[in-house]
Amino acid sequence: MTDMPTAPEPFDAVDVIRAKRDGGRVPEDALRWMVDAFTRGYVADAQMSAFAMAVLLNGMERDEIRVMTDAMIASGERMRFAGLGKPTVDKHSTGGVGDKITLPLAPLVAAFGVAVPQLSGRGLGHTGGTLDKLESIPGWRAALSNDELTAQLRDVGAVICAAGSGLAPADKRLYALRDVTGTVEAIPLIASSIMSKKIAEGTDALVLDVKFGSGAFMKDFERASELARTMVELGTDSGVRTIALLTDMDTPLGLTIGNANEVRESVEVLAGGGPADVVELTVALAREMLALAGQPDADVAEALRDGRAMDAWRRMITAQGGDPDARLPEPAETHTVTAPSDGFVTRMAAFEFGVAAWRLGAGRARADDAVLHEAGIDLHVKPGDRVVAGQPLFTIGGPDDSRFGRALDTLEGAWGIGDAAPERSALVREYVRGDEPLAR
Amino acid sequence: MTDMPTAPEPFDAVDVIRAKRDGGRVPEDALRWMVDAFTRGYVADAQMSAFAMAVLLNGMERDEIRVMTDAMIASGERMRFAGLGKPTVDKHSTGGVGDKITLPLAPLVAAFGVAVPQLSGRGLGHTGGTLDKLESIPGWRAALSNDELTAQLRDVGAVICAAGSGLAPADKRLYALRDVTGTVEAIPLIASSIMSKKIAEGTDALVLDVKFGSGAFMKDFERASELARTMVELGTDSGVRTIALLTDMDTPLGLTIGNANEVRESVEVLAGGGPADVVELTVALAREMLALAGQPDADVAEALRDGRAMDAWRRMITAQGGDPDARLPEPAETHTVTAPSDGFVTRMAAFEFGVAAWRLGAGRARADDAVLHEAGIDLHVKPGDRVVAGQPLFTIGGPDDSRFGRALDTLEGAWGIGDAAPERSALVREYVRGDEPLAR
Repeated sequence: MTDMPTAPEPFDAVDVIRAKRDGGRVPEDALRWMVDAFTRGYVADAQMSAFAMAVLLNGMERDEIRVMTDAMIASGERMRFAGLGKPTVDKHSTGGVGDKITLPLAPLVAAFGVAVPQLSGRGLGHTGGTLDKLESIPGWRAALSNDELTAQLRDVGAVICAAGSGLAPADKRLYALRDVTGTVEAIPLIASSIMSKKIAEGTDALVLDVKFGSGAFMKDFERASELARTMVELGTDSGVRTIALLTDMDTPLGLTIGNANEVRESVEVLAGGGPADVVELTVALAREMLALAGQPDADVAEALRDGRAMDAWRRMITAQGGDPDARLPEPAETHTVTAPSDGFVTRMAAFEFGVAAWRLGAGRARADDAVLHEAGIDLHVKPGDRVVAGQPLFTIGGPDDSRFGRALDTLEGAWGIGDAAPERSALVREYVRGDEPLAR
Repeated sequence: MTDMPTAPEPFDAVDVIRAKRDGGRVPEDALRWMVDAFTRGYVADAQMSAFAMAVLLNGMERDEIRVMTDAMIASGERMRFAGLGKPTVDKHSTGGVGDKITLPLAPLVAAFGVAVPQLSGRGLGHTGGTLDKLESIPGWRAALSNDELTAQLRDVGAVICAAGSGLAPADKRLYALRDVTGTVEAIPLIASSIMSKKIAEGTDALVLDVKFGSGAFMKDFERASELARTMVELGTDSGVRTIALLTDMDTPLGLTIGNANEVRESVEVLAGGGPADVVELTVALAREMLALAGQPDADVAEALRDGRAMDAWRRMITAQGGDPDARLPEPAETHTVTAPSDGFVTRMAAFEFGVAAWRLGAGRARADDAVLHEAGIDLHVKPGDRVVAGQPLFTIGGPDDSRFGRALDTLEGAWGIGDAAPERSALVREYVRGDEPLAR
């Protein structure tokens, strides 16, 4: 409220807040102004957070979400890859435990001649970050200029790099505010936050991996489903062909949670092996990405078996200064937890395993913390597996054992051994496909 | 969010916001902390405004409102008049057009040996301020020290003076924030804002004049009724005997809207005359105040007729440096609007008459503007009166005619002449009396 410029403004923030507060629709020009004026500092944090709370409690209509997203995109630069001569397809995951899918997926799709610009973030909290994982590879660098990015998309096809700060700066500012005002959970704001950055990246098509379950941001399937539908509509209305997969995140993905160990597992998948769930999800996402890029019949599994995906991986890592043959960091100290009795593994709770890996040093508490690339957890079994007493269940590791106590405390009660195998639930629960764009 | 101290705090603002956002009750200790930490600057404006929006949309329970109010009282000083040897009773109006009732009411009640500490404010917008009106009297001063206030309560009984800034500073800060974030209209926050200051004043009992209609803050009877009930419960729960009158504010009170002219009309009432509606409301409020002070059978009307109320008025004005016999400012220029045809006055819309008086200079647009004491409107008739063509309806006045055009524009369509008299509605629509205090 202080130090606000007094130049005449076409709208009044209080009127915009009141419209949403009273359950109405905010007119397009007023909503665009609100986002723009917030970015310019004319609308105060206090005003934007009251508005965010009103959105959380009263919702937004489909066209309001599109306008809000469009205004956030307009607050920064917009990338365009029209000159590449090949289609671009991107993938976004709402975040999970052991979710390294981007690593095998980007080169796999690129092996079919499609450009995959994966502008990624770092981890914060119990879900890891794609860039943190790749930085386990000696020499690999996350920061690329726009020219380097374009050249690599043209020459290699796959790029996983840091998103520049020029994309949707309004979103960055709004997200920081939502984080401290209890308004993170508003689905219209989550959708516009994710999609403003993805649309600003200039991709032609987008596949969303929206996770639900204990290890996901959305614990609840219905809310995850609403978010997926909202984002698919938003992408569609914004001219980006978008589909979403609703996938289970009650159990960690694969057998590794950390950084270097997740890279190692990704390379196994690229070599035609790897855990079944990681392969299943990588293939399912790749199929959708390729279908959106005009190759609905691409034999994705074959490209994992015949080495084409691995070739693309090696070229992608090399292009960003990494050595694909380098030895990855390994924990100096480990501790293995074994089965106390015979039986079936009944559960391994994703959230607790994620928090434990984070406490081992694989993740960060603050944005400027460093991560320990060798720290993490290797699972030896998964829910449904039969075990005998004394059999290793999982191993925690790090540079020393100083963090093991807290990690093991977190894992207390996070897994179970029982008499019967649990029911298997499908990893990919549902596909959400776009309808016709909303008439503007 | 910036420059926040990092000392450990017992609660987290985000948890408090979330509890209210999700429709729950905020625990007492957390709510007290929230108000206190906001006053200390630890809870950011953005956080408090998200909380205010959640309160507006999800409400607060009766005991939460009491705790919130109590925490705002605890943010500042609390006055006590226990040593006076007589009961104290206060009155608060939610504000209306032509509402000068405090002027005759305070000395009238004081004439019965009751102390009336009327800590008042200045006008902002279309409703006038009691202090602005009294400052029409040459020499009268609004600012009293606490010692002067106590002495005058003991010696004269009636005091109308400026509220010190030491009362409920958290409310002042929160109100400024609500004003710019679309959260003024939250009934729990309106109630706690008004009542925190009144309770901090240390009165034994309180009579509330809650207005509804076009000239009131609450246009709608149901909302005004909810506010009245909330404040009566809050007073009762806080140990202050409280009742409320719901009174009609569709038509200006009395025949004057301004400052000096309202003082003149108040003196007429104290002399046993004055407009019927002003007398009716003054007497109704005085009866309730005296009943709360233990004099349910006081003959209030008699004290207006026999000069006791006028004596108290003269002593009250004199004690604050004013000359009760001084000539009051009068407009140098006037303009009278006359009836265009024979008929009945069907309406005089309070809001528009209030805005017109404000535009004539009787009110202020910004807190530090001065008011023109001679500016305002005198009504010659009221709705229900029969008029003939050419008969004066009302006169606008000021130091010159430079503001007459805008005032007359505002009054265009704000009154009507018709063939039949409008139905009379009761001035005092309802009495809201307290139940038993809520068990704590």
